[in-house]
Amino acid sequence: MAVGLSQLPTLYPVRGIRLAVGSAGIKYKDRPDLVVIEIAPGSQAAAVFTRNRFCAAPVTVARKHLAQTSPRALLINAGNANAGTGDLGLAHALTCCDALAEQLGCKGEEVLPFSTGVIGECLPVKPFVDALPACISRLSASGWADAAHGIMTTDTVAKGVSREFELEGKPATITGIVKGAGMICPDMATMLAFITTDAAVTRNVLQECINQSVMHSFNRITVDGDTSTNDSFVLLATGQGQAPLIDSVDSVEFVQLAQVVAQVTTELAQAIVRDAEGATKFITINVTGGVSEAECLEVAYTIAHSPLVKTAFFASDPNWGRILAAIGRAKIPELDVRSVSIYLDEVKIVSQGAVDVEYTEPRGQAVMDRSEINLKVDLGMGPAAACIWTSDLSHDYVQINANYRS
Amino acid sequence: MAVGLSQLPTLYPVRGIRLAVGSAGIKYKDRPDLVVIEIAPGSQAAAVFTRNRFCAAPVTVARKHLAQTSPRALLINAGNANAGTGDLGLAHALTCCDALAEQLGCKGEEVLPFSTGVIGECLPVKPFVDALPACISRLSASGWADAAHGIMTTDTVAKGVSREFELEGKPATITGIVKGAGMICPDMATMLAFITTDAAVTRNVLQECINQSVMHSFNRITVDGDTSTNDSFVLLATGQGQAPLIDSVDSVEFVQLAQVVAQVTTELAQAIVRDAEGATKFITINVTGGVSEAECLEVAYTIAHSPLVKTAFFASDPNWGRILAAIGRAKIPELDVRSVSIYLDEVKIVSQGAVDVEYTEPRGQAVMDRSEINLKVDLGMGPAAACIWTSDLSHDYVQINANYRS
Repeated sequence: MAVGLSQLPTLYPVRGIRLAVGSAGIKYKDRPDLVVIEIAPGSQAAAVFTRNRFCAAPVTVARKHLAQTSPRALLINAGNANAGTGDLGLAHALTCCDALAEQLGCKGEEVLPFSTGVIGECLPVKPFVDALPACISRLSASGWADAAHGIMTTDTVAKGVSREFELEGKPATITGIVKGAGMICPDMATMLAFITTDAAVTRNVLQECINQSVMHSFNRITVDGDTSTNDSFVLLATGQGQAPLIDSVDSVEFVQLAQVVAQVTTELAQAIVRDAEGATKFITINVTGGVSEAECLEVAYTIAHSPLVKTAFFASDPNWGRILAAIGRAKIPELDVRSVSIYLDEVKIVSQGAVDVEYTEPRGQAVMDRSEINLKVDLGMGPAAACIWTSDLSHDYVQINANYRS
Repeated sequence: MAVGLSQLPTLYPVRGIRLAVGSAGIKYKDRPDLVVIEIAPGSQAAAVFTRNRFCAAPVTVARKHLAQTSPRALLINAGNANAGTGDLGLAHALTCCDALAEQLGCKGEEVLPFSTGVIGECLPVKPFVDALPACISRLSASGWADAAHGIMTTDTVAKGVSREFELEGKPATITGIVKGAGMICPDMATMLAFITTDAAVTRNVLQECINQSVMHSFNRITVDGDTSTNDSFVLLATGQGQAPLIDSVDSVEFVQLAQVVAQVTTELAQAIVRDAEGATKFITINVTGGVSEAECLEVAYTIAHSPLVKTAFFASDPNWGRILAAIGRAKIPELDVRSVSIYLDEVKIVSQGAVDVEYTEPRGQAVMDRSEINLKVDLGMGPAAACIWTSDLSHDYVQINANYRS
């Protein structure tokens, strides 16, 4: 029931990247649950990871390996998060890296592991390792769609974005896939995302590119306020395209690349919200007129995390009092409610802190009946603004999370 | 489906207090929706109110009136919150106070108004005022149970507590009623509560008593993290019992009174959580081993507000990984996950940040099958502790808030 998500678009191959899926049958028995992404030598990688203190074993290992060298492969499994598993979990993650490294002829620390699924259960290493040879034999540059499916857990649709663009007149390609539908909150990457480009970029510049893009994409979405233990976002640049090396954030090419990365990450982040567990609405929350961006975000997330606001959206009920109550409890000490305005799409609901004189229930109802809604709040205090995306709270959200051990 | 709440207990009359209910038919057509609590001259009152910036018109008026004089009556209506209604809402609240004052022969500012219900709808003043004479004609010292029913909105049961106790050997009585089931979060009083005693207490001492009690009762509960626009808690002391005047917080009598008020407020606060919208579980969260109480509360509320933890409790699923993930994203910079332990009732689940060696799924399941559960988290860092109460997130919560305009 993903909101406004059509079929997976064409995902262009990226020179220097090959992918394959495999079946270890760890949790899902009737579909691939392993993905290998092979990276050509000479590529650069940058990443951001969850800030959850209980970060999963694969996050600890991936962070350490990335600090040591450039990765030659990503190894992803779905269905088991290998989190809350202590030292044994770390050993399991390393064993899997070593097994793949042996198959590919690289070092263990050149493999970055990623896991999502149930927290607190031991990762079964043997079926994982046993599935690798068959998986690797299928590595292909055109494996993107399969990989997008292979990393899914409670996702209802595979999610990916691909663009052909130009860097100083030279053709380049960027392709990314993402998984995530629940335990989504913006305290960093908030899901698994793998984006690759054939542009040539130095490592520091690539890290700057990922840092900039995550701030206004994956760090601006929330489904349920729960930050996962396993969130990871990796950006790879193979350098096998025709465009020259980007080695400075002040270059024209960097601006061009950063713009495309921003588009791709925003679209992938929105795709997570559109495919949020039980979602029936895709809601954009724009808060303007704050003194600082942090203030605008505080208001936006207080609204987005309110179960009462989320159930009103689910019911298509223009019960704007719940939005107003959420704004009022946001931690903005100097807020003057008499300067607050609220809009649902084109309909002004609240002026100067009270119901607008031209507002009528049928006008509010007409907007709430839509599946994509823009909620705008103007605080009337300053020049800052922020934009986030969220979903509603439906029966299916409860159903999915009460019935599925995720 | 209130968890562990039996019938409304006997509510003892309190000398100097008379109550009555009336029917204005504002939202509820087949039950009383108005309550008048008449207070004898010479009584003292103290109150705490919501900190929501969009506080309702009656809260603004009650705060102002209480600052001017001692109240002679409380006027409560259910079904319409008179919030988000601007200057017109203030005028309406004042009109209702004046109408009751005229009937009772007191001044308008000696009436404190309280409203709960739908936010953002205009309060219909005429049916309200028209219902007052019949209501007042029924004023009675034994009207507590009716009043407890009259203030309900989405509550499924009437909630009240009554105690006979001693102050320095002299008998005294305390009786309180409360309403609240949703939009409950601990940023202060978080519902309507009216508690009266026939003890004699000076106003400053009474305010200190209310401030102390609220910190560990109404400010320690959460249903959905939504702080209402209308929360109010009033403590009245009529001075018509036999105990001597309490005019100092250093007296033995103050300690005795404060202890009883703490018991009554805690029991009423817990009753709100037991009757939380859609609740099937009553969950006590104890966090120990923090460096500060604020740190323990941050961890406790992060767990209590997690939709994933709440749906796992609803499902009776010992999916403790969600509890661990919530602790990990709590804003405790110095948290070392290797010192964290987690218990569900008598079962130790997590030791030193990973699953305990003696934990088994059947042992966790046995606890999760209970309707009342103690979740204990030890942070292993310091001497501070905090305790809060919360409920689960069920299909009925979504049903109630998607289908009922509350």
